Amino acid sequence: MNLEALLKQVTFNAQGLVPVIAQHFETGEILMMAWMDRQALETTLTTKNVHYWSRSRKALWRKGETSGHFQTLKDFYIDCDGDTLLLKVDQIGPACHTGQKTCFFNKVTF
Amino acid sequence: MNLEALLKQVTFNAQGLVPVIAQHFETGEILMMAWMDRQALETTLTTKNVHYWSRSRKALWRKGETSGHFQTLKDFYIDCDGDTLLLKVDQIGPACHTGQKTCFFNKVTF
Repeated sequence: MNLEALLKQVTFNAQGLVPVIAQHFETGEILMMAWMDRQALETTLTTKNVHYWSRSRKALWRKGETSGHFQTLKDFYIDCDGDTLLLKVDQIGPACHTGQKTCFFNKVTF
Repeated sequence: MNLEALLKQVTFNAQGLVPVIAQHFETGEILMMAWMDRQALETTLTTKNVHYWSRSRKALWRKGETSGHFQTLKDFYIDCDGDTLLLKVDQIGPACHTGQKTCFFNKVTF
């Protein structure tokens, strides 16, 4: 599929963003959830270096650009209604800025 | 953790919603991504029957209420900054309304 055809299938929200789940391609662990704008999506697909849109900094963000904890794109999925993306990635170091392996390290028990 | 303590840790967006990733508790497959409001979250935790907020119908939605494809909560995680939830669930039948096992059946290749 070419990039233009894919972009037509993606439903960006009112802010021009789409949620993205990053899953480790080997372990199946869910590493994080973040957001992409059109530019982050294009850059990720053309370079295979995963980029997101930083909502706090309002800027294109190459994952790992400050930490060195880069993500490499392995496989790319779009969901049934086009409003969520799933990336299977290779992850250098921990995915979470806290130093944890994934951002979902808080298990809540009741 | 009690419900009130948990709710204080969850960052709901401007629409009062939080994104939720549903992952099969045994296979690790990502089944779907949907949204919860406070009521859906409370109902899910108290009943273990997974409920979401239907953005199209603007109503509380018990997953499977029309299809019979219910989800049962097994484990519950909140991410590092409290703005995304991860549920490990058991899934009766296919998770996707299309009849596919997961909503992420479209693999995009370049």
